[in-house]
Amino acid sequence: MYEGIVQDLIDELGRLPGIGPKSAQRIAFHLVQTDPADVARLSQILADVKDKIRFCDLCGNVAEAPRCRICGDSRRDSSAICVVEEPKDVAAVERTREFRGLYHVLGGAISPMDGIGPEDLRIRELLSRLADGGVTEVIIATDPNISGEATATYLTRTLAPLGLRVTRLASGLPVGVTWNTLMR
Amino acid sequence: MYEGIVQDLIDELGRLPGIGPKSAQRIAFHLVQTDPADVARLSQILADVKDKIRFCDLCGNVAEAPRCRICGDSRRDSSAICVVEEPKDVAAVERTREFRGLYHVLGGAISPMDGIGPEDLRIRELLSRLADGGVTEVIIATDPNISGEATATYLTRTLAPLGLRVTRLASGLPVGVTWNTLMR
Repeated sequence: MYEGIVQDLIDELGRLPGIGPKSAQRIAFHLVQTDPADVARLSQILADVKDKIRFCDLCGNVAEAPRCRICGDSRRDSSAICVVEEPKDVAAVERTREFRGLYHVLGGAISPMDGIGPEDLRIRELLSRLADGGVTEVIIATDPNISGEATATYLTRTLAPLGLRVTRLASGLPVGVTWNTLMR
Repeated sequence: MYEGIVQDLIDELGRLPGIGPKSAQRIAFHLVQTDPADVARLSQILADVKDKIRFCDLCGNVAEAPRCRICGDSRRDSSAICVVEEPKDVAAVERTREFRGLYHVLGGAISPMDGIGPEDLRIRELLSRLADGGVTEVIIATDPNISGEATATYLTRTLAPLGLRVTRLASGLPVGVTWNTLMR
């Protein structure tokens, strides 16, 4: 529909998750008409992101050093580990400001349909962290969907022999709660 | 919330139109985890777009040469000009495959609230195109909103003395059409 590079830009933007053809077109024309410095900055960050981003050796969260900020923070409680699927889940738990322990990012969830088994996740790394004996509690905070539940069940069984306190993050509404209670 | 460049990327993506903080985060993590070649391609297109994109000397549409593809196409009917607000409107009219004339992109619409007056649009360029005498019909296809209507009214008055056929693109439902007729 458009000439050369405008169409290329629309096509590339349309590949991003959650961006349809209309949004891609709107963003492309925004970029064409915006300050060149803004576009150059976005281009530069995209060029750098793959070089600069690494994953924490310990927990697997995104980091810019061998250890992420949380694992490198000595004020955190190293006896509790919260197991999550993705780095964004670390940010979600952090936003609650309720958890002062460390994290472990699995890098996904068990999903036989997509060919993802336990060996494709960072479960071996989790077991080696737990082998040190300093951890007394594991909180499983995988997503409340089929693959998240499957991963939680697998982890609960795998960790059972270690004698740790293993809990699953609650989701949904507590029994007995009514709409009126929630809205009050 | 995130470290260094991941947060920079989320912030920059969040500046784009229609992308909120959640979408920005989803896209950023998609980019972090995707094939480096894809990210490099997007980065390169963004770096090039400002250098390669220019606007057609005649109609103001996006182009990669002094003339856009439509203005450079001798098979188009040069006696009719369709006046639109933005380059994306050219694409929208082209998709209908009903119009074989040329276009004129105003680069916006009259909007006193935003400090945009007739002198900020490419109206002078339109008048100089019409002065040649080859054009017999002008179709005003500005957006069906307040500023689009204001622009249409202004153009109709400005073009009236030239003795051209000036029409406004219809919008909405024709009188007498019922919901049942539409759904049949």
